[in-house]
Amino acid sequence: MKNTEAILVTPGVMRIEECPMPVPAEDEVLIKVAYVGICGSDVHGFECGPFIPPKDPSQKIGLGHEFSGTVVSVGAKVTRFKEGDRVLCEPGIPCGKCEYCLGGHYNICPQVDFMATQPNYKGALTNYLTHPESFTYHLPAHMDMVEGALVEPAAVGMHAAELAGVKPGKNVLILGAGCIGLMTLQACVLMGAERIVVADVIDRRLEKALQLGAWHVINGRKEDTVDRSRALFGGDGADIVFETAGSRVTAMQSFASVRRGGEVMIVGTIPGETPVDFLKINREVKVQTVFRYANNFPMTIQAISSGRFDVLTMVTDEYTYENVQKAFEESLSRKAEIIKGVIKISD
Amino acid sequence: MKNTEAILVTPGVMRIEECPMPVPAEDEVLIKVAYVGICGSDVHGFECGPFIPPKDPSQKIGLGHEFSGTVVSVGAKVTRFKEGDRVLCEPGIPCGKCEYCLGGHYNICPQVDFMATQPNYKGALTNYLTHPESFTYHLPAHMDMVEGALVEPAAVGMHAAELAGVKPGKNVLILGAGCIGLMTLQACVLMGAERIVVADVIDRRLEKALQLGAWHVINGRKEDTVDRSRALFGGDGADIVFETAGSRVTAMQSFASVRRGGEVMIVGTIPGETPVDFLKINREVKVQTVFRYANNFPMTIQAISSGRFDVLTMVTDEYTYENVQKAFEESLSRKAEIIKGVIKISD
Amino acid sequence: MKNTEAILVTPGVMRIEECPMPVPAEDEVLIKVAYVGICGSDVHGFECGPFIPPKDPSQKIGLGHEFSGTVVSVGAKVTRFKEGDRVLCEPGIPCGKCEYCLGGHYNICPQVDFMATQPNYKGALTNYLTHPESFTYHLPAHMDMVEGALVEPAAVGMHAAELAGVKPGKNVLILGAGCIGLMTLQACVLMGAERIVVADVIDRRLEKALQLGAWHVINGRKEDTVDRSRALFGGDGADIVFETAGSRVTAMQSFASVRRGGEVMIVGTIPGETPVDFLKINREVKVQTVFRYANNFPMTIQAISSGRFDVLTMVTDEYTYENVQKAFEESLSRKAEIIKGVIKISD
Amino acid sequence: MKNTEAILVTPGVMRIEECPMPVPAEDEVLIKVAYVGICGSDVHGFECGPFIPPKDPSQKIGLGHEFSGTVVSVGAKVTRFKEGDRVLCEPGIPCGKCEYCLGGHYNICPQVDFMATQPNYKGALTNYLTHPESFTYHLPAHMDMVEGALVEPAAVGMHAAELAGVKPGKNVLILGAGCIGLMTLQACVLMGAERIVVADVIDRRLEKALQLGAWHVINGRKEDTVDRSRALFGGDGADIVFETAGSRVTAMQSFASVRRGGEVMIVGTIPGETPVDFLKINREVKVQTVFRYANNFPMTIQAISSGRFDVLTMVTDEYTYENVQKAFEESLSRKAEIIKGVIKISD
Repeated sequence: MKNTEAILVTPGVMRIEECPMPVPAEDEVLIKVAYVGICGSDVHGFECGPFIPPKDPSQKIGLGHEFSGTVVSVGAKVTRFKEGDRVLCEPGIPCGKCEYCLGGHYNICPQVDFMATQPNYKGALTNYLTHPESFTYHLPAHMDMVEGALVEPAAVGMHAAELAGVKPGKNVLILGAGCIGLMTLQACVLMGAERIVVADVIDRRLEKALQLGAWHVINGRKEDTVDRSRALFGGDGADIVFETAGSRVTAMQSFASVRRGGEVMIVGTIPGETPVDFLKINREVKVQTVFRYANNFPMTIQAISSGRFDVLTMVTDEYTYENVQKAFEESLSRKAEIIKGVIKISD
Repeated sequence: MKNTEAILVTPGVMRIEECPMPVPAEDEVLIKVAYVGICGSDVHGFECGPFIPPKDPSQKIGLGHEFSGTVVSVGAKVTRFKEGDRVLCEPGIPCGKCEYCLGGHYNICPQVDFMATQPNYKGALTNYLTHPESFTYHLPAHMDMVEGALVEPAAVGMHAAELAGVKPGKNVLILGAGCIGLMTLQACVLMGAERIVVADVIDRRLEKALQLGAWHVINGRKEDTVDRSRALFGGDGADIVFETAGSRVTAMQSFASVRRGGEVMIVGTIPGETPVDFLKINREVKVQTVFRYANNFPMTIQAISSGRFDVLTMVTDEYTYENVQKAFEESLSRKAEIIKGVIKISD
Repeated sequence: MKNTEAILVTPGVMRIEECPMPVPAEDEVLIKVAYVGICGSDVHGFECGPFIPPKDPSQKIGLGHEFSGTVVSVGAKVTRFKEGDRVLCEPGIPCGKCEYCLGGHYNICPQVDFMATQPNYKGALTNYLTHPESFTYHLPAHMDMVEGALVEPAAVGMHAAELAGVKPGKNVLILGAGCIGLMTLQACVLMGAERIVVADVIDRRLEKALQLGAWHVINGRKEDTVDRSRALFGGDGADIVFETAGSRVTAMQSFASVRRGGEVMIVGTIPGETPVDFLKINREVKVQTVFRYANNFPMTIQAISSGRFDVLTMVTDEYTYENVQKAFEESLSRKAEIIKGVIKISD
Repeated sequence: MKNTEAILVTPGVMRIEECPMPVPAEDEVLIKVAYVGICGSDVHGFECGPFIPPKDPSQKIGLGHEFSGTVVSVGAKVTRFKEGDRVLCEPGIPCGKCEYCLGGHYNICPQVDFMATQPNYKGALTNYLTHPESFTYHLPAHMDMVEGALVEPAAVGMHAAELAGVKPGKNVLILGAGCIGLMTLQACVLMGAERIVVADVIDRRLEKALQLGAWHVINGRKEDTVDRSRALFGGDGADIVFETAGSRVTAMQSFASVRRGGEVMIVGTIPGETPVDFLKINREVKVQTVFRYANNFPMTIQAISSGRFDVLTMVTDEYTYENVQKAFEESLSRKAEIIKGVIKISD
């Protein structure tokens, strides 16, 4: 067996290179990668280079952290997996010892080793990689490898909805109907919300939102998102607003759309400074930034496996590993059309 | 217009008598009752008399607190309702001033005036009754009067599930597949739980549980409920156990079935003393008694209205008002067959 | 008995006028006012007129909502009070019927009738006023009338600390050592926090903060508040930041000082727009606006009564009712020196 | 350097034997033990043998898990400690990988390796022992070694109070004024509770409770605990009851004393079955078993270090290491007099 990895040579240029076959440590599994999902952060990295550049300029930069695959071999102390098991992984390995980890919030561990970022920049776009047993999960028999690769972004939506305390009766507004917005939508439906309004500027995405259970959709190019959502919710604003579009405009809309006593969940990456008038949200509004996920891969796998959470419907584009450069180029050039792209590494 | 009410003359005997037409106070609506659901507490009252007997022995005892109807007239300050509106009501009127009410827990208000019990023993089995505007709700256009009458027991299940924090990924065990057990089951499904096991001793009820989304069912006459549920949940016990059967045996099973860190919700009315070995549940298990509901009629109506929560499927028996005596007699004699009986008062 | 009230004739001008003696409704008490505390919102009203101007231009504008007094007479249904009882009041009367009230969050009731603001603009600067029994509290025997008048601002601090979940081990930063900042400080000490840093620009206030239990203080004129607080907390930022100064600068400091997973509580009134860079607080930081208080007057009275919460130490200036104009003028002109001014209406 | 350990030869017989000097692993520190506190579980083990007997009958059984000491050497990867540091330790080492650990509830980790119990039965009554860096804490300069050894039982009280949500205004009843009852009392005082009633049958302990901030005490031999506590709380029952005495009688009292909507925290080890009448606590009472502690050693150390939490006042008896047999014998024979005994191993 030989191994290769797709490396970001310079912003805009990926190259597949040979690399060493990794050897699993005693608590690790060696995985043959099957599918890798393309995340917005990967596309951003492809376009602009790593958000946090490596200290060592010779550091190789991998991309990809949403993946599934098959176990090839296991370390001596691994008990839950064996060769041939179909798996998917949680791509961030926390330190396990800091107060955040011990307190159950390992997603905000300052020492977390997350794939495709510092300190190791190890990407999932490779033939073989190792991963700790405790952050590896079995792929249920009736879920396929593409679904496995998409558990990670689904977990982002589930975490956001869980952190917000979505439940029956809540009026929910989701700003942005990209992959994360639609994942959040499905999580909200799953948790019992009935009145979910989704806003975006691309009709195709809004149609998908309606298919996935949105109560109403708003095209922000055609209607005023804030006014329309307030009208839909009976003048009162949303109990919970999820900002998933990652723009200053939608961040401002989120504050203008929330109800007294309500919550704004900042899921997207908002560049720069957003002006916030706290007097306009002074009736005990909560604003919370949401970061990745913790403790929810099992529930996310279960939700997909049961058929109540559909990740396959997100996939608009599939590429081969050889076409990794094209995959990233199109992720930029066809942004409006692509909801989710995936790259096939092996069968 | 003249008015009658069904009165409990003595345990086992109901009689329909004439009674005054009530006049709505300024914040009340006058309602022509359409349907009344028969609750286990009504059947218990019919059989044994009121749980808390009235101080005045001449006090007339009404039964029934699950009802829907049509607004006939409204008090001077009522703004949300007008003649002809189809409505349903929350049958407990809390004092609004004690610390429980001000703190949002009006269901445990010590001064609550709940229908068919002390201090007023006013029952819903009557042609006309008055009710405060603020505990009256509009029946959505596509919900019928029977559904309206069953919002109340549905709210019990919703409250239990909400209090337990049901969410995706939770392993749930429901002991008892009577009306409240099945309502709780639907609430758990609605809130995203996938692995819900329901136990009862009557196969017909268990079939209904499977239709309504149970993952597995257990007939306690044929299998050991505790062993079987532990086996289904992978040896670990349930995250959340709902005791809805109201027996000492099922209460004991609930403690034997719960997982470390899990919760036991006591929804049923457990007579007498239940022996609890706290050493066997000493790994931070929570046990909580559940009482009626608070702040959840709107979400319950929404869930039924959307079609995700089916109360009609519960109704096994319908009676006319004239047959109120028969309705209660059969509720006792055919207990195993009846899941939910309703009484039609008017069209 | 005759009655007078201090009326805001025009911004900057108060006048004491005769007014009718109010008659308590059946659920109200008639109170002879003893002391009234001057709140920053009163001073703002004096300077600029009401925040929300009355619709009717002939509406008389009262000021003052922090008060204590003695019961003169009671309505027919009042049971907890009698003539001669020393009392203090919660100045906001919520509707009791909306979802916020029923849910326990009556402080954000949209229909709340709060003193000295719309719809009634009734101020506490009067000889006699009526108030509902259920928002009136007994003043414990060993608390004096000044303490009674200051329960209200103490409740603001208690509510902020409670909402933030202050507890032992939390690193707390309080921005602003005015009345509300110092009340919040005491609430944090009471709830077990040991490391409380208080920042202000006036040394006299910071000395008071040290007396009341601050671990360290920062004079923002002499040191950089953000850098210094981070250094004190070991580089990591504060678990909880209370913005009580009500300025754009301190609001910005609060976001720069909070730790990953931490909370920013916006207690002050922040005018205009504050630029927020969500990327800098993207590790699951919560920001919450805090509005008045709910359900905490009994605990606040208990804390003052026990001696663990000292409100008298705040009082730097006392005025007579006749000098009400001077009281407000000095509240503006000597802002930096006054921590809390009170006005004596009667013995 | 040579090493010895105190071994439980047979129930009732301790013997000090030579044992190997342990060598710290790369993430461990080697500690010279200074003081060891005697816990009720140690006394129970001395009297009856281990609660869970070892599978291997030749397994040596150590006792003691509350300890302080001085670092002698550190493993290669240890960064926070060096030779000479004064330290104390958390005696349970969880697996770090199960869902309980990852979710922040490491105290209920099924694989936890807790001192003096299975699987390793390693006791703190030894001259030298190794411990993982991440469960070792610095002893602040002004805390002495006895205080260090008592952080562990203090953490039990802190955890119970934290889990119960103790805060200002709560009416608290503590059943049992032994070491854990008094630790819980101090935690409740620290968290702002003013009305704390403590019940026991030994006056000397109740005097200590009054010194430590109890509002009232009840000697259950002289008064009825339930009636008296209800009278003190104004007829209404306690918001929070802590059962710390570990008996069936006090467990029953805890259910009889709690208020509607209140909480019963089972902190003590209740042998056998306790009869519970759920109808008597059917107004949404929560019952929760409490197990050890998690994530609270830093806050407990801070509280002791600040002087707000006094552990030294608990210490009624000190023994030398040589007198370990006597220490345990007296812990049994003088149970009523001893609140806390400690054993000095080294200076």
